[in-house]
Order: sequence, then C-alpha cells, then structure tokens
Amino acid sequence: MPAYSHILFATDFSQESESAAQRAADLAQRCTARLSLIHVVEFSPLDYGGEQMLPIEMDLEQELADEARKRLERLGERMGAAKSDQHVEIGSTKNEILRVAAATGVDLIVVGSHGRRGLALLLGSTANAVLHSAPCDVLAVRVKGP
Amino acid sequence: MPAYSHILFATDFSQESESAAQRAADLAQRCTARLSLIHVVEFSPLDYGGEQMLPIEMDLEQELADEARKRLERLGERMGAAKSDQHVEIGSTKNEILRVAAATGVDLIVVGSHGRRGLALLLGSTANAVLHSAPCDVLAVRVKGP
Repeated sequence: MPAYSHILFATDFSQESESAAQRAADLAQRCTARLSLIHVVEFSPLDYGGEQMLPIEMDLEQELADEARKRLERLGERMGAAKSDQHVEIGSTKNEILRVAAATGVDLIVVGSHGRRGLALLLGSTANAVLHSAPCDVLAVRVKGP
Repeated sequence: MPAYSHILFATDFSQESESAAQRAADLAQRCTARLSLIHVVEFSPLDYGGEQMLPIEMDLEQELADEARKRLERLGERMGAAKSDQHVEIGSTKNEILRVAAATGVDLIVVGSHGRRGLALLLGSTANAVLHSAPCDVLAVRVKGP
C-alpha cells in the first residue's frame, strides 16, 4: 500500500491542538507526504436588522482572515508546509475543509479531538460531519482539554 | 514526537475492510509499532420468552467466536500481528474495543469508514462512539461500500 501522499491538517490555533499539529507533521515526514494546513474563519450570518451592518461584518472577517494568515504562516514554518499549501478560508468549517481536501487531492485529513467531548470544541460542531463526509481518511488526534 | 507504538486494527472481516487492514499494517511498519487485531462478536441479548433458549444462544456465540479466531489468525499472519495480539471478544463492539485498547496500551485505533454513510456499517452503530470515547487517536480509513 502506498503511503499517504498529501496530508491536510485543520487547525483552530488553540494550544491544545499543538499535539495534533506535531502528529500531522510527524506522519507527513514518515510518509514523505506533502503537508497542507487549513484554518477556517467561520462565517456567521447574523441578522443585524440593517443592511448597513454588512460592510462592517465583512471587514471583521477580512481582519480575522488576515490575522489567521500570519499565524498559519508561523505554524507552516514550524511544520514544514509550503506557503502555497497554507489555506485560510471564510465560511463553514466542514464545507471548506472538504472543499480544499477535494480540490488539492488530499488523502488524509488530521483533526484534533477532545475525546469524550467529541470533536466539537476544536473545530466547531461541524467536525463530526467532516469525518462522515470526507472523501478520504480522517485521523482524529486526541488532545487534552483546556 | 514519538511514532505510534501500538496500533489496534478493528475488523469485521468484510471485503471492504481490506484496504483499512492494509493501511493499519503499513502504518505499523512505518512506525515500527506493535500491531494488534480485534474482532468483536456482538452480544445481542434477545428476549426469547424462555430460559431454555439461553444455552443455545451461548453455543452460537462460542461457535462464532471460534470461527472468528481462525479468520483472525489468517489475517494476523498476513498483517504481521502476533498470535497473542489477536483478540476475539464477545460483547458490545464499542466497549470491547475501548477495553482492549486501554488494557494493552494502544495509542492508535484503526477502523474502516464508509464515508457518507458514516462508520456505522463496518463496525455497527457503535463505531461512532468508539471515536468519541477513545482514550487515544482514531484513524477512520475510507473504504468503498459494497
């Protein structure tokens, strides 16, 4: 059986997800696999009751995305993921992880899991859905809760 | 980060789970990890409305377990799992996998997953619970449905 060729690590930048990051990097090295990173800025469409709020909301999302890009770049340097393999997306965590995984030919998605409390905390309540909808293998790395 | 040291592969002997078996064996080799196998004969307490049915039911379970031991031995030979690391258990799939994982110091459980249809088919509807209750990492290997 060929080794994994392209591993995608989904991060929420939490301190707890550090062990999952290390596991993803270790597996990528053992499999000589390409390593990609993804962070999703969750899009939360809120009803502000006024159209004029929309630009502010979009500004905030862009600000969060810009900040995330900087953090992902630092993580990418540590983990050995090329700049072009660092994805910051805005939208639904589940959908964006699956979309990027499919678009870039990922064969293993690595996510942190809080064990008894499920995958919910690290990646939002959609992580479960990632697992069930993924077009590829999924590794849930047990991380210690905060 | 140290490699996985003890990998547990849970099998239902289905043809579809073959790719998951190969993945588990490949990872064990890459990590120089001990490889254990488990098959659980699901205990289904049925109300037959008569006590005299119980011995027959127990006989059937033992028969299934004996047959499973033979199949697991053949799988173990192919995958490189020692005889003492082949577990056939009778009971709840979830509970038995978690019990054996904890008792033998497993740090990665590998299970087959049917993707969109969830983990339910391969390991019964309890596989989801394995994932959420596991004391260690869980790798869900995508397998093709029948």
